Amino acid sequence: MRDFSGGHEWLSINTATLRRQNGVEQPLPVILDACARHGIRAVSPWRDQVHAAGLAQTARSIRAHGMALSGYCRGGMFTAVDAAGLREARDDNRRAVDEACELQAACLVLVVGALPGALQGRAAHKDLALARSQVRDGIAALLEYARARAMPLAIEPLHPMYAADRACVNTLEQALDLCDELDPVQAGALGVAVDLYHVWWDPKLSEQIARAGKQRLLALHVCDWLTPTTDLLNDRGMMGDGVIDIREVRGWVEAQGFAGYSEVEIFSHRWWQRSHDEILATCIDRHRRSV
Amino acid sequence: MRDFSGGHEWLSINTATLRRQNGVEQPLPVILDACARHGIRAVSPWRDQVHAAGLAQTARSIRAHGMALSGYCRGGMFTAVDAAGLREARDDNRRAVDEACELQAACLVLVVGALPGALQGRAAHKDLALARSQVRDGIAALLEYARARAMPLAIEPLHPMYAADRACVNTLEQALDLCDELDPVQAGALGVAVDLYHVWWDPKLSEQIARAGKQRLLALHVCDWLTPTTDLLNDRGMMGDGVIDIREVRGWVEAQGFAGYSEVEIFSHRWWQRSHDEILATCIDRHRRSV
Repeated sequence: MRDFSGGHEWLSINTATLRRQNGVEQPLPVILDACARHGIRAVSPWRDQVHAAGLAQTARSIRAHGMALSGYCRGGMFTAVDAAGLREARDDNRRAVDEACELQAACLVLVVGALPGALQGRAAHKDLALARSQVRDGIAALLEYARARAMPLAIEPLHPMYAADRACVNTLEQALDLCDELDPVQAGALGVAVDLYHVWWDPKLSEQIARAGKQRLLALHVCDWLTPTTDLLNDRGMMGDGVIDIREVRGWVEAQGFAGYSEVEIFSHRWWQRSHDEILATCIDRHRRSV
Repeated sequence: MRDFSGGHEWLSINTATLRRQNGVEQPLPVILDACARHGIRAVSPWRDQVHAAGLAQTARSIRAHGMALSGYCRGGMFTAVDAAGLREARDDNRRAVDEACELQAACLVLVVGALPGALQGRAAHKDLALARSQVRDGIAALLEYARARAMPLAIEPLHPMYAADRACVNTLEQALDLCDELDPVQAGALGVAVDLYHVWWDPKLSEQIARAGKQRLLALHVCDWLTPTTDLLNDRGMMGDGVIDIREVRGWVEAQGFAGYSEVEIFSHRWWQRSHDEILATCIDRHRRSV
C-alpha cells in the first residue's frame, strides 16, 4: 500500500469540492488555478463547469497546468419515459465520451439515473426494474461507442438513499454484475468508480473489491460520512471527520493493483462557505493523515 | 395475495406513527384509544411508551381492546465499547423479551446497533466489522433466552444510511446470513422484519424474500420513500405518496406464505403535526388502496 504521508502527488480534486463559495458558483478556471497553486496534479471536472468555461479552453488550460484528469463527471442518466428521452440520453452520453477524450480523462464516470422525474420530485413511475433494464441497455450501447474511442466507462454505484432519483445501481456487486454481463473480456473498457461515501457501509465491500480486481477498479473517490448527517446530498465530510475507515478500504483497493489517484469529492454546504485555499490545504493535510 | 381493498383487518399501527402531536409526546393509552376508535386490530408499541404507561397496565389495556401485537419495538443495540456495556445490552434485551412475552407480541423486533457513540455524534471507533461481530454474538446469546420463552426474534435490516449510528445490518441478505448461521433449523425462533423503507431499493430484494420463506418472514412494515427526502430520520411518507411499489413487494412476501399484519410505521415531522384521527383515517384509506 502506498504511503501518502509524505506528499500529495496522488491526490486528485473533484471540482465539485470547490464549486461554490458562499452561494456563488465558481468558474472552472478559478478552481483550476487554485488547484495549481497547491500543487494538485489531477482533477475531475464536472461537465456543466466545462461547458461554461468552454471545452477547448479547458483542455488547453489543463494541459498548461500539466494536470491529469482522474475522471470526467459525468455521463449516465440513462432512464427516460419514452423513446425520444432514451435517444436524447444516448446522444448526450456520446458527447460526454467525446469531451472526456478531448480532455484525456482516465475514465468517464457514470451516474446511471433512476426513476424518471424523481429528481424533480415527481417520479413518472415506480418500476425500479424497468429503470435498471434501461440502464443496462444504455450502458451496453454507450460501451460500443466508448470502446471505439478507447475511453473507459466507470459505473459509480450510488448510496441506496439515491436509488429513487439519481442512480438505481446501488452496490458494488450490482455494478460488477453489469460489468460482467456487458464486458466479459475485462480489458479495461468497463469498470467501476468506488466512492467510499456510497459503499462504505456494504458488508460485502472487501469481497466485491477483490472480485473487481485491477481491470475493473477505474477510480477511487474519498470523503467521509458524518454522524449526524443533516442533508442527504450536501453534508459530506472531510476525510477524517467521519466514521469511514478510509485507509482500510484504500488498502483493499490497492491490494488489487490499483495505483491511481485518490479523488476528493465533497458536496458540503459547510465547506462551500470556506475559501478555496482553506479547503485545499485541508484536503492535502487529510490526504496525508486520513487517506 | 390477499385483497386489502375491502377493509383493514390486516392493518397494524406502529405506535411511533402517532407518537407526537405538534411537538408533544402522546401517552400510549391515548394512542391505543385512538386506534380502537378506528377499529385497528393490531399495534406495535415502543418500549419507552410501554415503560411510561406501565407494562401491566398496557398488557391489560391491550387485552381489553382485543388487540394483537404485530411486534414489539424494540430490542437490539448490541454493540458497546467494553464488557460492561455488552452485559448491559444483554440484560436489557432479556428484559425486552420478557416484556414482549407479557404483551404476547408476535415477535421482538431487533434494531441491532452500530458504531458505539455514533448516535450521540461521537463514534468510539470506525470498526464496522467489530460492531457486526458484537451484533452476531449478541443475537446468538439472546436467541437462547428468547427461544426458551418462545418469543421469536425479528432482525430488522435498516437502510444503509443508518449503518453508522443505528444498525450495521443493512440488507436482507446480511440479516438472513445471520439467521442461517445462528438458527439453521428454521423453526421460527429467528427471522426478519421486512420494512419496505429500509429495503425497497435492494436489487436482490425479491430473491432474498424468496430465500427467507415463511419461517423467516416475521413482520412486514410499510410506509413510503418520498422524493425529495428532507430528513434522514423523520421524513417517511404515507403509503402511496412516494416511490415504493408496496403492493409488488407485499406480493413477494405473501407468495412465501406470509399472512400477518401490514404494520404502518411512519416517522414524520409532517404527519406528527396532524391529529390522530386524521392520520389513522389516512392509514386505513391507503392500506386499502396503496398496500
